[in-house]
Amino acid sequence: MSQSATQPVVAVLGATGLVGQKLIALLEKRRFPLSRLKPLASQRTAGQQIQFAGQSVEVEEACPEAFEGVDLVLASAGGAISQALVHQAVARGAVVVDNTSCFRMHPDVPLVVAGVNNEALDAHNGVIANPNCSTAQLMPVLKALMPLGGGLQRVVVSTYQSVSGAGKEAIDELRQKSKLAVDCAPGEYPTGYACFARPMAFNLIPHIDVFMEEAPYQGYTKEEWKLIVETRKILDLPQLPITATAVRVPVMVGHSESVTVDFNQPVSLDEVTAALRAADDVVLSDGLTDYPTPLETEGTDPVYVGRLRRDASNPEAGVSMWVVADNLMIGAALNAVRLAEALVARGLVTPRSQCAHLFEPAAATA
Amino acid sequence: MSQSATQPVVAVLGATGLVGQKLIALLEKRRFPLSRLKPLASQRTAGQQIQFAGQSVEVEEACPEAFEGVDLVLASAGGAISQALVHQAVARGAVVVDNTSCFRMHPDVPLVVAGVNNEALDAHNGVIANPNCSTAQLMPVLKALMPLGGGLQRVVVSTYQSVSGAGKEAIDELRQKSKLAVDCAPGEYPTGYACFARPMAFNLIPHIDVFMEEAPYQGYTKEEWKLIVETRKILDLPQLPITATAVRVPVMVGHSESVTVDFNQPVSLDEVTAALRAADDVVLSDGLTDYPTPLETEGTDPVYVGRLRRDASNPEAGVSMWVVADNLMIGAALNAVRLAEALVARGLVTPRSQCAHLFEPAAATA
Repeated sequence: MSQSATQPVVAVLGATGLVGQKLIALLEKRRFPLSRLKPLASQRTAGQQIQFAGQSVEVEEACPEAFEGVDLVLASAGGAISQALVHQAVARGAVVVDNTSCFRMHPDVPLVVAGVNNEALDAHNGVIANPNCSTAQLMPVLKALMPLGGGLQRVVVSTYQSVSGAGKEAIDELRQKSKLAVDCAPGEYPTGYACFARPMAFNLIPHIDVFMEEAPYQGYTKEEWKLIVETRKILDLPQLPITATAVRVPVMVGHSESVTVDFNQPVSLDEVTAALRAADDVVLSDGLTDYPTPLETEGTDPVYVGRLRRDASNPEAGVSMWVVADNLMIGAALNAVRLAEALVARGLVTPRSQCAHLFEPAAATA
Repeated sequence: MSQSATQPVVAVLGATGLVGQKLIALLEKRRFPLSRLKPLASQRTAGQQIQFAGQSVEVEEACPEAFEGVDLVLASAGGAISQALVHQAVARGAVVVDNTSCFRMHPDVPLVVAGVNNEALDAHNGVIANPNCSTAQLMPVLKALMPLGGGLQRVVVSTYQSVSGAGKEAIDELRQKSKLAVDCAPGEYPTGYACFARPMAFNLIPHIDVFMEEAPYQGYTKEEWKLIVETRKILDLPQLPITATAVRVPVMVGHSESVTVDFNQPVSLDEVTAALRAADDVVLSDGLTDYPTPLETEGTDPVYVGRLRRDASNPEAGVSMWVVADNLMIGAALNAVRLAEALVARGLVTPRSQCAHLFEPAAATA
């Protein structure tokens, strides 16, 4: 590779997955400064060749020793893999941007949306968590609204989440079952789904991740709980009243959210409009009919906001809106790469970074 | 027909449409007491034979004279047809249960959900309005909750509405375009939809009916406005704070709603559970994983409620839930037939009904 050896060695954990592929494409597209890319995956896909910056790179098997000499890890191989390997990478001196839910609520782990709370990166101890997709896209919006109307009083969210949030297999299954279901009469729909708890083609499933059994979140799904507690952590509003209903919809890529925001004091629609127009990473629709849809925003970077209006149930101090983003981008890969960029820009990742770590660092190797 | 001639003559206006076919099937299935069925439709489909109670009945062209001798009309041929013909039917002595939005908010027209506010039927002046599908399914739920916690303080609804709400052509179009779209790469999706403002296959459209241009509903769609103002009228809560975001989803039949309800005073989840279990027409899920989905409830009568839980943003006095029903049934045909049954039971429709009418009745004909 042509990059300077003073640039970090970057490993992508889960390199052959849906988000891993996006991560590698974004590292190339955004010309991330690295001296070497190290794609890591399970034994099953290790040995595959991937293309990066005009060169062929072999996927290596993810194991503790694979992190020797790695400065930065972008981890997106699922919770069990992160649980097993992130500490191993940190122990070897790497900084890890983790895309799973393993470490997000750990008090010593910054949970960061790029452009929203980058300052939290400075306190990292080797691991930075990337929030859940449905949380991430809401953050630039709520961050922009926080200064208005004496602050946020309450947020009510209903999500419309695409199947890509459940991985490549889920997209394949929706495709396959949709072909079978499209001409079915009621009662003849295909069953036997592998990736979903119920039939997904031409249906809705209000059930993402497991159910929470204990108060105060009893009856919520873990996906909904994530949106609630991650939002509070990222915005540093530990008491924010917020609720969510998370629903899987038969869309391939792109998450949508119906969001109602109450402020503590009256706020004008003009103020809200101006705040969203000024917000980084947010594209506010111009007119009534110019609303975003997930299919039409697939593959793009911003968070799109449309249908902004005074809330008829709280006209003085409330607004409702429709928020759409590519869940694989700001909700996953794009945010991870932007966090990596911010770490470099803040001097928090350099080759053989010497920052403090959560765990006893192993002796640095060349 | 074998029914007594002392039973009413019933016309179905829009007999060949999606809801009209359901209306006729329900009249037969529920053994509605009628002396004659008169299916009416546009010139295009007049002359078709339909099956009813073992006999073949010819569809007649809908025109003012077709209502001569008709006692009861179930109208479901769209707003323009109702605007043109409902008065003509009433002028000829018929009582009309109208499924369009034409007369719903008229102060002299009762807007009724069977089992929720049947008493409003008594004040009718020839026309009874059947509410919008997304309103209708919510009413048995809110009616059951109204007595709790000092009354409803606020309701926030996000809908997930199937394409059948836009008619038979919309189902056909979703089928056809889904076949084209299922293997498409991003950017290659089929366009040129006839029934929808944007691509519908594997997509979401937060835009049902036209946009409202004036305060206090500026920025709402008319579908959302309907849900708001119809709910207030049916529940006789003219000031109820309620908001809605209405979204079309790629589901064939069945509307779903994510609903957050605030009460004026603290209310326990047990109270809410008991009220919903006791409510007519409502089926409350037993356990966490027993939630309803639209595909699985197609063709059935009840309103299904699942995911009932304390609202994390208002744990003392709020609940959230997931409400699913077949929009062609309680949201349209079933409610119309049940209203017709209630009219008969209350003596409000009898052959050559003599009740007061909105308009000068024409001379009764044999």
